[in-house]
Formats: sequence, structure tokens, C-alpha cells
Amino acid sequence: MEAEMILGKASVSFDVPVWIRETASVVGKKEGDGPRGNDFDEVCQDEMFGQKTWEEAESELLKRCAGLAMTKAELEAEDIRYVFAGDLLNQTTASSFGLKSFNIPQLGLYGACSTFGEALILGAIVVNAGYAKNVLCTASSHFASAEKTFRNPLDYGSQRPYSATWTVTGAGAAVLDSMSGLVRITHATVGKVVDYGVKDPMNMGAAMAPAAADTIYQALSDTGHKPTDFDRIITGDLGTVGQTALIDLLRENDIDISEQHMDCGIEMFDADTQDTHAGGSGCGCSASIFCGYIMKKLASGEWKRVMFCPTGALMSQTTFHEEMTIPGICHAVIVEG
Amino acid sequence: MEAEMILGKASVSFDVPVWIRETASVVGKKEGDGPRGNDFDEVCQDEMFGQKTWEEAESELLKRCAGLAMTKAELEAEDIRYVFAGDLLNQTTASSFGLKSFNIPQLGLYGACSTFGEALILGAIVVNAGYAKNVLCTASSHFASAEKTFRNPLDYGSQRPYSATWTVTGAGAAVLDSMSGLVRITHATVGKVVDYGVKDPMNMGAAMAPAAADTIYQALSDTGHKPTDFDRIITGDLGTVGQTALIDLLRENDIDISEQHMDCGIEMFDADTQDTHAGGSGCGCSASIFCGYIMKKLASGEWKRVMFCPTGALMSQTTFHEEMTIPGICHAVIVEG
Repeated sequence: MEAEMILGKASVSFDVPVWIRETASVVGKKEGDGPRGNDFDEVCQDEMFGQKTWEEAESELLKRCAGLAMTKAELEAEDIRYVFAGDLLNQTTASSFGLKSFNIPQLGLYGACSTFGEALILGAIVVNAGYAKNVLCTASSHFASAEKTFRNPLDYGSQRPYSATWTVTGAGAAVLDSMSGLVRITHATVGKVVDYGVKDPMNMGAAMAPAAADTIYQALSDTGHKPTDFDRIITGDLGTVGQTALIDLLRENDIDISEQHMDCGIEMFDADTQDTHAGGSGCGCSASIFCGYIMKKLASGEWKRVMFCPTGALMSQTTFHEEMTIPGICHAVIVEG
Repeated sequence: MEAEMILGKASVSFDVPVWIRETASVVGKKEGDGPRGNDFDEVCQDEMFGQKTWEEAESELLKRCAGLAMTKAELEAEDIRYVFAGDLLNQTTASSFGLKSFNIPQLGLYGACSTFGEALILGAIVVNAGYAKNVLCTASSHFASAEKTFRNPLDYGSQRPYSATWTVTGAGAAVLDSMSGLVRITHATVGKVVDYGVKDPMNMGAAMAPAAADTIYQALSDTGHKPTDFDRIITGDLGTVGQTALIDLLRENDIDISEQHMDCGIEMFDADTQDTHAGGSGCGCSASIFCGYIMKKLASGEWKRVMFCPTGALMSQTTFHEEMTIPGICHAVIVEG
């Protein structure tokens, strides 16, 4: 019980670093065609992933990604003590169904598109505290199952405004290890539910930017870091609209992250040629970009330290129909190469 | 990092006990009329909880319960470092919306009706590891919002078979503390997703019983306890059909819990007079019975030790329509008075 484990209002410091032993990323064809396409482990050309329904497709995507992470880590499912997992579907069935065949004790999470960050935080705490040598942290999304869950039947061909994002078909999985690995998680900050009253589900970036600003401010304040201590400060899926809002919100608090900021949603697609508008979104967006592109930069030593801050919009189709606001949440982990 | 913190395949032992400092339970009128009605802190006669929609009603119920737990614990929201919370609604909006005004860093969970157990496990780990002095663990369900999410519009007046359960309008909230409290959490066991192929959503007890059997077997095996070490072994919402299946499944493994078994769903209602058939269900069922009835028995010393094993059915309306199975999950904590 060392006092320095607890930092400020919402952060923890890992006295013994928690290692990310290996990661895996699996995405769909459109994501593979994007600017980070070469950084993913697997690009599946079949959006159905060999299954009969979109929901089963997402479960298969997640299963394949989790299995690949364990293979790359040279571990069997029985070596993994706990899996921390979530997704966007109603009652998070993509992860319940997708991971059940591994028979790993499972802790289901829901933080919308911030879920992979939440999984890394809880996984790192459990490993750091000595409750497990290895855990698996994973999250997924699928364009078609998400559109069905949140928006309109694809067959309607509804037009999308430029502030809208495109849900990523993708999954990321990270095997954490108490002893050794490629990169280290050194700090974590748990985010609050932040609600600025935004109601437009076609502008999720604006809804989530206040939560991202709140968590990044808290993480910097709690850890004593400044933006220039990081090679990148990376949000999940704010997109171009949310990026501008985030940078402006932090400037109001005399923090300038404009040089360091990167958004996984903006990285995922080439908006000009791929018709994705503000950027990619979904649990699988930040999860796959982290497990692909970001991990490569950190493991190679090109980046020394990043703050990874996946963002989530805490809405459902029901809350939208009932004209409620869209609160946001953002969780942060600091990772060193 | 003491080796004895990790027990067997899926359990942890808390070397320094984690205290439950206080709990609160808030339920609806029907639950207040049931056999455990006098054990709840608050019985609300208005099923709308003063709100306009069923979803807002559930959020208000959860907010009221969480607030009451903090009041009883003589703590303010800013004293609570993290809240672990979940519910049954699509994208767990009852807890996102219900708890946001407290401004507590929030970790969203989804384990269906096992969510309160998952919250206690993760909360206890975080407190025991020294990452927080106080955390709040909470979960809710509401009859009407759950029926809308999972079943048919109430106005249809659909007939329910006797194996069906009745979703509880209720919430439970527990404040954990590293230093002192009413009762102690000594062990926790994380459950696996267990799928025996049951497909009938009107017989959730049968779907969840295999998961309960698996986790109880694992907890006994990992901790070296036998059923007679417990005053009660308490499942969440198996109901009468699931209870029989659970006892039979464990007997096949030479374990007899028939003398110790209690089910929160069976305790909640008087099936003969309240027309609830197999029993109560929902995240709020085990959460409110634990925070009311069970806590009173433990705090008074009448019970010395219980195993609390909330059970969840990992389905959605979509997986039902797609004729998929209903996997179950069950998490266990051992609590001593």
C-alpha cells in the first residue's frame, strides 16, 4: 500500500511496470485499404468473416484477434487468467459469444468506444497488484452490426453529414504480462461521465471532446506531466470535428496539445478517397490502431512515450429516440516504449 | 506479490480483507410487498420515480440508491475514488445517465444480472491493491425498462410460462473501504462464459444454472472450502427451475449444496400471491437482496460466511431473434460477517 500508487484525483501509478507482451489487430477490407492498413496483423476481405449474421461476424473477428494475440505471445488460453472485453452491441454480445470458446474467466466491460482503454486500465491493475501474471484485454466493433444497433438499416441509403464518423470493422487484443514485454504501461487515469448537452448522434466528436479534455487535463495534472513529455497524445475516435473542439477546450485551460495530438479515427481512413467524413469510430478503431500502428512506433523506439485516451459516447438508440443528451467518457493510459 | 493471493484457476484471496463499509437498497412497490420488503432502505411507490420515461426512472432509482449508500457511509461523492456500475439496458445507459451527476470516475461493466458481483470483485481488487480507499459498486434493473429491452411491449399482455422470471425494479449499492466496515470480502472468483445450448428466454434459470454450477465448483475447489463452511451459498436469479438444475449439476460432481442454497430471485417475491412465476431476476435483484437482507444477516452475526454468486444470461433481443443460444456467467465473492 504505497502512497505514491495513487496520484491526484483519478490516476494510478504502476510502481512495478505492467508490460504489454504482445498485441494483435484484425480489421476489415476498408480499414486495410486505409493509410494504416499495413500495420494490422490481418485484413479480412470477407466482411462476414465466414459467418451468417453481422453479429456472428463481429464475434468471429474478435475471436480471431484474441486468438492471434495469444499465439503471438506464445501463450495458450489456459495461461490467460482473466479476459477484459467489451463491444458496442446491445448487451455486449459480440464479446460474450466471441470469446466463450476460450474458457477464460471473463469480465465484461462497457465504455462505448473507450472500452479498450478501460480494459487496459483494469487489466494493468490486476496484473500490477499480483492477481494475475497474464491477462487479455480486447475490444471490437463492426461497421454493419453497429449501424444496425445505432443508426438506420443500411438499405435505406441514408445520407450522412460531414460531422458523422464511420464505424470501424476491427478488433485489437493485448496480452499483459507482469514480467516482460514490448512496451510498458506506467500510469492510468479513469474518466468521468461528462455531459455538455450535445444531442446530435451524427456529431459524436463534439459529444466526446469534453470528456477527452477532462481526462487529458486530469491525467496531466495527476501525473505532473506536460504535453511535451509525450510523442503523441492519442484520442480514440473524435474525428476532425472533435479534434478541433478538444484542442480548443484544453487551450481554455492553458494547455496546448496541438503539436502532440493524434486521433485514431483520423488515422484510420483517408477521408478524401474513402468517403468516411469525420473519421473512423467504434471500439475497434482505437483498439486496432493501438495494437497495430501505435505499438509498432513504441516497440521500435521511434516513440518513447504516448498517452492513449480512447473516447466513448454513452448513448443508445433508445436514449436518442427519447431526445436525451449524449454524455461522453474517456479513459487514459500512459505507455512507454 | 504474495503467491497466496492467487488461488487455483480463477480465484483471488484478499490477504488484507476488503470491508463493505455500508450498503443501500432501493426497490419498487411490488418488491416492497414481497417477503424481504422490510429489509430494503427505501420502497418507492411510484414506478416512474418521478421521471418521464422508464429509462429515466431506472437512472433515478440507481442515482437515489448510490446517493443513499454514500450518505449511510458518511461520505461525499468526492470521497469515492471510482464507481463500478452496470445495468441491463442497451449500452448500459441507466448507469451512465444515473450516476453522471456525482462526477466520480466511472468504470462501466456488463455481466447481465451478474453485474453486481463483477462490480464487487473489481472494486475489492482495486481497494485491496491500494489504488483506492473507497469505491462504490452498484447495479440496477427496472421491470418496465427491461421488458422493453428484452421482451414484448407490456401492452400486448403476453402470457408468461411458469419458468419465466419477473425483472426486479431495484438497485443495490455498496461502499467498499480499505480500513473498516460492517462485513469483509475475503475471496473472489471470476466466472467463465458457459453455454449449454439453452435457447428459451422464458427459462433463464436453465440457461444460467450451468454457469452457476461451474463457478461454485471452481470457488470451492480454488479456496478449499466445502459447502458446510457457508451459512448460505446464494445465487442471483436462477428461480425455482434453475435452482433444481443447479443442485442436480453439482451433485453430479459429488457436491451437495441443497442445505445451503438460497436464490435471491426466489427470496424476492411470494410466487403464489405475486404472480411472479419462477422468481425475480435482473441486476437489481441480487444487488438489492444483497444490500438489504443478506447484509443484515451478516452484519448482525446471524450468518458468519456466505458465498454470493450472482448469475447472468448473456443474450440480447438480437441474439434471440437470430436463434442463438443463451450463454450464462456467474461471479462469486465470499463475504464474512
